[in-house]
Amino acid sequence: MTQANQIVLAKRPTGDVTADCFREETVTLPALTDGQLLVRGRFLSLDPYMRPRMTEMRSYTPPFALGQPLTGGSVGEVVESRNPRFARGDTVMGMLNWASHTVHDGKGLRKIEATGVPLSAHLGVLGMPSFTAWYGMTQICKPKAGETVFVSAATGAVGQVAGQLARLAGAKVVGCAGDQDKCVWAVREAGYDACFNHRTEKDYGAVLDKLCPQGIDADFENVGGKLFHAVFGRMNNFGRIAFCGAISEYQDTTPLAGPPKMFAIVQKRLTIQGFIVSDHVALMPDFVREVGDLVKSGKLKSRETVVDGLSKAPQAFMGLLKGENFGKLVVKLG
Amino acid sequence: MTQANQIVLAKRPTGDVTADCFREETVTLPALTDGQLLVRGRFLSLDPYMRPRMTEMRSYTPPFALGQPLTGGSVGEVVESRNPRFARGDTVMGMLNWASHTVHDGKGLRKIEATGVPLSAHLGVLGMPSFTAWYGMTQICKPKAGETVFVSAATGAVGQVAGQLARLAGAKVVGCAGDQDKCVWAVREAGYDACFNHRTEKDYGAVLDKLCPQGIDADFENVGGKLFHAVFGRMNNFGRIAFCGAISEYQDTTPLAGPPKMFAIVQKRLTIQGFIVSDHVALMPDFVREVGDLVKSGKLKSRETVVDGLSKAPQAFMGLLKGENFGKLVVKLG
Repeated sequence: MTQANQIVLAKRPTGDVTADCFREETVTLPALTDGQLLVRGRFLSLDPYMRPRMTEMRSYTPPFALGQPLTGGSVGEVVESRNPRFARGDTVMGMLNWASHTVHDGKGLRKIEATGVPLSAHLGVLGMPSFTAWYGMTQICKPKAGETVFVSAATGAVGQVAGQLARLAGAKVVGCAGDQDKCVWAVREAGYDACFNHRTEKDYGAVLDKLCPQGIDADFENVGGKLFHAVFGRMNNFGRIAFCGAISEYQDTTPLAGPPKMFAIVQKRLTIQGFIVSDHVALMPDFVREVGDLVKSGKLKSRETVVDGLSKAPQAFMGLLKGENFGKLVVKLG
Repeated sequence: MTQANQIVLAKRPTGDVTADCFREETVTLPALTDGQLLVRGRFLSLDPYMRPRMTEMRSYTPPFALGQPLTGGSVGEVVESRNPRFARGDTVMGMLNWASHTVHDGKGLRKIEATGVPLSAHLGVLGMPSFTAWYGMTQICKPKAGETVFVSAATGAVGQVAGQLARLAGAKVVGCAGDQDKCVWAVREAGYDACFNHRTEKDYGAVLDKLCPQGIDADFENVGGKLFHAVFGRMNNFGRIAFCGAISEYQDTTPLAGPPKMFAIVQKRLTIQGFIVSDHVALMPDFVREVGDLVKSGKLKSRETVVDGLSKAPQAFMGLLKGENFGKLVVKLG
């Protein structure tokens, strides 16, 4: 009988997520039945989209269940298998519990072959956040050479890839991030043309006017809120907005209004498109080919924050929602 | 020398358009030069998009010039021509002045052949408003059988066609209009499943919940404002919003905020697309073929309000912005 450490949703948050929303517990896992496998977690991905899943929502991925382990994109190792597709020792990725061990039915799990990249990269620059960036940038933003692209949360797991893909397409890329070190990294390493600190800039409109004097042709939106309002007001004719997330709004208890002058959508012929990348897995092979090549050739930089130990996951996640991570946030397990 | 009656923009409106924004005057037109033609106006189209053109705006069709005649989609008759493409007696359509006579260089004018439909139909059900409806419905809303489509300003020049196209695609169609007679016409003649009176309904959310119990899959947006907010909050996953106009906002002096919970765009994977039909003239032949057939076969109903005489154009236009017309509003000239 395997003992597992796991973190369950103890209560649903109202406003900011607090430590008492989580409970770490040790459970005895049941014996496997046919088709199941036991996976030991190696790396757990923490992502902003998990915050909306902590509340009950009408539509979207189903909410996390109260009293049950939270789940997240993970890399793990098969320690026991009664599923013919997997063998002991396989490295796999997919949705696992926030846990040392997960009993899994194999659905949605896939094997990872050794490719020389660190395992955690499969949760970042070769994984779902990067696929998200690729989808939004290539299928919605579609930047052309010479256009101006704005990326909020410019150094986050998604933003850092989105910005670099826009640059590689020949666009001018402007971003914002939550501290000066991130902004420096964005420009020096990721090749942003400019990046401003959204915590110290008081007037988003003024800084955007300065950094994007030709207006904004495409916006990869991760943040929402007042920052989005300022970007929206500076979109050019035929502008595209890939709406990926709105982290600034996830913990708001009073819903913020949308930007004023919505008629600008008509005047400027804007397209605003929301997306969730799991709807587009059919395009995964295109992503793997294009972005895999960029990573191997060193053309795409990435940055991650690794937190050590499952017990630190709740604190790290609360920090993520306040922008305390730098790049992709992963938890190293066991 | 030809004397022309014309209406010029006397001042730019702030808030509601008022009578003193217009001035009727008689001018002596100059003799034609090579390439020019003189057109006598027969019908002038009045459309909501003219209101934004009365103010100075950063982007869009250029604003009307102060002291110059307003212009609008028109049908006219060539009375003199020094342009080889046109001959005296030709019936033409295109942008003409709000005037009895217009000197024109022929650009954007096209000849109309007698087809048995009333001349004014070329400004409505066979013209730009109908093309607008066709573009937004077939290229953006893309309704499927069994889906629910909402059309605001359901009996307006654009809305009446949009709603019927959605119905012909097999969708359930719900609309709203500004009085009971319009709502009755929408259901009895245009085949809407339901139409509510937005002036007497106090709670847009409640009436939408009642009339669209399955939510809204596509919205053809003509009105904006609080009505749009209520529709936005009831969009289904993968919903499409064709943003055509926002007549409720055109005379607002304090810009209304957008709808709250913009993150719904992500959660529900919404697409919001603004458009101006003049960007899409390449699709005009498709529109003419498809909608022309529907009109000839009697499958597409239309309704118009005809105002008699150029002098009444300002008052009729002010009424249009308050929803006083019923269907396409045209001015019969001369």
